[in-house]
Amino acid sequence: MPPTAPRTLGAFMQLSLDGYFCDPKGDMSFAHKPPDDAEWNAFVSGNAQGGGTLVFGRRTYEMMASWWPSPMAAKAMPEVAAAMNERPKLVFSRTLRSADWSNTTLIHDDAAETLGRMKGEPGPDMVILGSGMLVTRLADAGLIDALQVVVNPVALGAGKSLFSGLTRRLNFELVKTRAFANGTVVLWYAPAA
Amino acid sequence: MPPTAPRTLGAFMQLSLDGYFCDPKGDMSFAHKPPDDAEWNAFVSGNAQGGGTLVFGRRTYEMMASWWPSPMAAKAMPEVAAAMNERPKLVFSRTLRSADWSNTTLIHDDAAETLGRMKGEPGPDMVILGSGMLVTRLADAGLIDALQVVVNPVALGAGKSLFSGLTRRLNFELVKTRAFANGTVVLWYAPAA
Repeated sequence: MPPTAPRTLGAFMQLSLDGYFCDPKGDMSFAHKPPDDAEWNAFVSGNAQGGGTLVFGRRTYEMMASWWPSPMAAKAMPEVAAAMNERPKLVFSRTLRSADWSNTTLIHDDAAETLGRMKGEPGPDMVILGSGMLVTRLADAGLIDALQVVVNPVALGAGKSLFSGLTRRLNFELVKTRAFANGTVVLWYAPAA
Repeated sequence: MPPTAPRTLGAFMQLSLDGYFCDPKGDMSFAHKPPDDAEWNAFVSGNAQGGGTLVFGRRTYEMMASWWPSPMAAKAMPEVAAAMNERPKLVFSRTLRSADWSNTTLIHDDAAETLGRMKGEPGPDMVILGSGMLVTRLADAGLIDALQVVVNPVALGAGKSLFSGLTRRLNFELVKTRAFANGTVVLWYAPAA
């Protein structure tokens, strides 16, 4: 994909029906699909091969960095694993000392300031995967251009809410929707004008 | 609609994108649509005229009982107001002394026990409107047969979460979805088998 200016910043989030991106212990296994779900796998695979830079907060980065380079991931989802390992990645953290996953840049600076500046520079589009706290901060700062929410058909009853701690209400425009046979619904939003 | 046995118990909820049925102060105005939204009004009107018994917790009851019998409601949405005023209604509350909205029965007994018993008796189907705390308790007790969730295109950042305090995870099957031009998505769920 040729570089574009301005670059856009998207976010791809898995949520429970009650709006949590993880349970109270940080567990996200509610969002796991059966390994043989061909329709879902094709969707995830298409997303993973979409090009552009991946952006993470520390927790999601650590989870993904421990999974995608593993032999298990290469066996379970070879195309997605290859794409995830190859794509350029940014991880924002004040505490991480190093980020060893292939093609990853560790950034200690403020995420909103850094990404706000990067959006004004030429370069590939960027998409945040998971990283609910980071998405919340960036959405609050008006920096998210496209939000893709995966609503899983499960209620957790407790957990970490996406958008918790916003300083203002955020209004969105619905762009499109897609329902999957596994009961998942994907909702695409843009910020309201 | 002829009485059926067993009666089903449904729930119709308006939620923000982050899973709240009201903001921290109990305000639900985030779910209001422009008065001239013909597509949405036709949907609401169809729902209101669907027959069956309406079920409420105290807070939603008080809000609706102060609106639907009013001249303003009759002017704004005449068909829906007429249907809402006419349909048989149950309100569950330990504190209300009386319930004066037309065709309303006030029930001081436990909602799960009462509705669990009623579901085994012949009679019209029942649907809970709003009443997030009541829906949570009844879903936890396995009494909700159909859940209709209206996802509004707004993030509140804080509020009262549907399903807060569940004693277990609840898995659902997605039945169907419908997107509206106003950015709202309606999701129909049944309990997972």
